[in-house]
Amino acid sequence: MDFSSKLLENAVQEISQLPGIGKRTALRLALHLLKQPTEQTLSLSQALIELREGVVFCSKCHNLSDTLLCEICASPKRDHRLVCVVEDIRDVMAIENTGQFNGVYHVLGGIISPMDGIGPQDLTIQSLLDKVKQEEISEIIFALSATMEADTTNFYIFKLLSPLGVQTSTIARGIPIGDDLEFTDEVTLGRSILARIPFESSISKS
Amino acid sequence: MDFSSKLLENAVQEISQLPGIGKRTALRLALHLLKQPTEQTLSLSQALIELREGVVFCSKCHNLSDTLLCEICASPKRDHRLVCVVEDIRDVMAIENTGQFNGVYHVLGGIISPMDGIGPQDLTIQSLLDKVKQEEISEIIFALSATMEADTTNFYIFKLLSPLGVQTSTIARGIPIGDDLEFTDEVTLGRSILARIPFESSISKS
Repeated sequence: MDFSSKLLENAVQEISQLPGIGKRTALRLALHLLKQPTEQTLSLSQALIELREGVVFCSKCHNLSDTLLCEICASPKRDHRLVCVVEDIRDVMAIENTGQFNGVYHVLGGIISPMDGIGPQDLTIQSLLDKVKQEEISEIIFALSATMEADTTNFYIFKLLSPLGVQTSTIARGIPIGDDLEFTDEVTLGRSILARIPFESSISKS
Repeated sequence: MDFSSKLLENAVQEISQLPGIGKRTALRLALHLLKQPTEQTLSLSQALIELREGVVFCSKCHNLSDTLLCEICASPKRDHRLVCVVEDIRDVMAIENTGQFNGVYHVLGGIISPMDGIGPQDLTIQSLLDKVKQEEISEIIFALSATMEADTTNFYIFKLLSPLGVQTSTIARGIPIGDDLEFTDEVTLGRSILARIPFESSISKS
């Protein structure tokens, strides 16, 4: 593209570094900002700088936080003996949105994926083991995705936790609430039959 | 969404103000920036601020520019008697990329669109008329889109220019080069038959 303005060219170049944003979209965004009041661009830039320089990882659960200990880990209302292991911060947000969990989290920061060069040492697994050894934890809940990589990660951590004698569980897999049975894939449906639960407990949980 | 970090929430809020970017995409972009070196976020923010504060409109053609007079208007190699009227800066870039035009531009800044509340007074039409009156201009080329609003704008400006006795033309409408005849819509095909040109001139132009 042939820009009439070096500043515009530079801005488009920087914006198009973001994932999923090409040169054309970047140009559209830059031209949009030019049409808006200057304040919008300033507050956007300010927010990005503050985010990058201010956000830290919670020293306990490795969740993103503004303080050394995140809100959840610092809260006395939470059950600190119940630890939910998740892949990243988005999963924390998803579970928090359900309002069904009152324990604390442990953010792995990814899953074991040799294809992407991510091994166990890149995740916060050691920190989880230390936590189990040092603190009084009643249950570790695995809340990872239902993919092969996530299952591998799950199993890897489970093997390390077994000798420590802590109770582990994994979130239920099955037919999503509201889904039509005939459109459910056969693997999920087959597993849901094998992992059937007493009817009484299914009502008490809903 | 329930954010563990106010800084993250603020950044997501700001990013999602951009057109076509929702909260989820904004969160993805913010988390991406957090994984990248701090420099990337700083240079992105810097580029945005510089863009918004540094870019001006060329005093002559209303194109975006870093200087009071844009590169094209300032160039002595350009034919300043040939003025191409376009809707916005993207059209300038598109025409410049063809390498087929050696005149200068006049950026309208939009097209007349009563539905969007854009009237003739919101565009740089008066500036175009002044240019035609004050400068020696041999031809005004209309290079607007082939939509109804653009045609209206075209006609509106044409009526204002007629008494001034300047030669006007519009870019050719027809079958795009490389297109299959059977897949061309009937309006374009019908017009291209009515607006047929001598075969000799079609070869000399290619």
